[in-house]
Amino acid sequence: MTSSEDTLARLAAVIESRKGGDPDASYVSRLLHRGPDAFLKKIGEEATEVVMAAKDADHGGDTGKIVSEMADLWFHALVALAHYGLTPGDVLAELARREGTSGIEEKALRRLGERESQEKGKP
Amino acid sequence: MTSSEDTLARLAAVIESRKGGDPDASYVSRLLHRGPDAFLKKIGEEATEVVMAAKDADHGGDTGKIVSEMADLWFHALVALAHYGLTPGDVLAELARREGTSGIEEKALRRLGERESQEKGKP
Amino acid sequence: MTSSEDTLARLAAVIESRKGGDPDASYVSRLLHRGPDAFLKKIGEEATEVVMAAKDADHGGDTGKIVSEMADLWFHALVALAHYGLTPGDVLAELARREGTSGIEEKALRRLGERESQEKGKP
Amino acid sequence: MTSSEDTLARLAAVIESRKGGDPDASYVSRLLHRGPDAFLKKIGEEATEVVMAAKDADHGGDTGKIVSEMADLWFHALVALAHYGLTPGDVLAELARREGTSGIEEKALRRLGERESQEKGKP
Repeated sequence: MTSSEDTLARLAAVIESRKGGDPDASYVSRLLHRGPDAFLKKIGEEATEVVMAAKDADHGGDTGKIVSEMADLWFHALVALAHYGLTPGDVLAELARREGTSGIEEKALRRLGERESQEKGKP
Repeated sequence: MTSSEDTLARLAAVIESRKGGDPDASYVSRLLHRGPDAFLKKIGEEATEVVMAAKDADHGGDTGKIVSEMADLWFHALVALAHYGLTPGDVLAELARREGTSGIEEKALRRLGERESQEKGKP
Repeated sequence: MTSSEDTLARLAAVIESRKGGDPDASYVSRLLHRGPDAFLKKIGEEATEVVMAAKDADHGGDTGKIVSEMADLWFHALVALAHYGLTPGDVLAELARREGTSGIEEKALRRLGERESQEKGKP
Repeated sequence: MTSSEDTLARLAAVIESRKGGDPDASYVSRLLHRGPDAFLKKIGEEATEVVMAAKDADHGGDTGKIVSEMADLWFHALVALAHYGLTPGDVLAELARREGTSGIEEKALRRLGERESQEKGKP
């Protein structure tokens, strides 16, 4: 296994091991102990911070900030996945599945087309 | 390279190849063509959809919806990274870096502690 | 009634009147017809757009964009309130209640203090 | 002036008066002192909390939680407006302007139609 894939799997394992741990000793145990709203709120918050870092980069800011905020977002995404008994592998499999044989483009376009139709109320 | 790491790297390569492509033929080319606000808005929107799918799962809904929405979120995150000349590897390296020798827990706790101090105005 | 308060009450009444209306003829009827996820997603999306417009203003952009995006956010907030049988008056009453006799500041501080304690896992 | 309109105007005035105040004594002064990212992040976070409270209400939860989270969202929106030299009146005027003579419906539909065209890349 290469080191980068390792990272997601290893983080997921660390998070998994924190289930039921001491909320005062571990940030992840605390998030999991406090329940879904605690880490779901973080997903909304960290997504906003990614957007802010990106806007700063648009105006000349350091892209390193984007990396840092994206890491925060993915980390809390992993916590959420763990809570629901899911793994990063499930998400990667879904992405691979969409890519399929004919390329993710078409899949994404089809999904988007369906959504926009729904949004217009004319499916 | 294993298949799951492959997925992120392969998707990043596909997205990269769509830069400057025909906005009418490719969803990714269109997002990149329309500029940052187009895909950054999607990050906010998809994060919200992850949260909604998770809340539904809390109340008995299918966790498959979470996987699907998380895939959407990660996909648009990859588009944003590509725009700023970044790769999923950069984010994974940052996550690995934090994990370091003493465990990601302590790092995350330290980061959180710093933030909460700032939020209280007592840096 | 002054014209600005009028605005919120009038909009709430318009939205209320769209309940059960033709989804093809009215945007609000369509949102309400499609159900909570449709307008809740918009709240996440519009909040992100407010943030992006604000970041642009930080870097010299037009603050008029903030006004426009904030109007979108408030509008979709009114749609959500209507769906749940709530009114803008309920939210304003809650804000007034917090303000109380001793000023909203203290109330907000107290609320924040409680939250930060929870986030640290030491209630 | 009626009491509810009063609320927004009064809150805006309180927030305005906190500009340059002691960050340790006032939550609003602290937010304004820390700068845009501090309160913009809260807008993303509170929007997420509104969505979570709404989802809980969908599944039988108390709608009072929605009111409380919406109040938080509007409050931080007012802080952001103040920072950019804007007022709630500006947002209400924009909402009233859209409503115009022919009803907000048509305006909103037209705006949405334009957006969806853009999203499809066929303006």
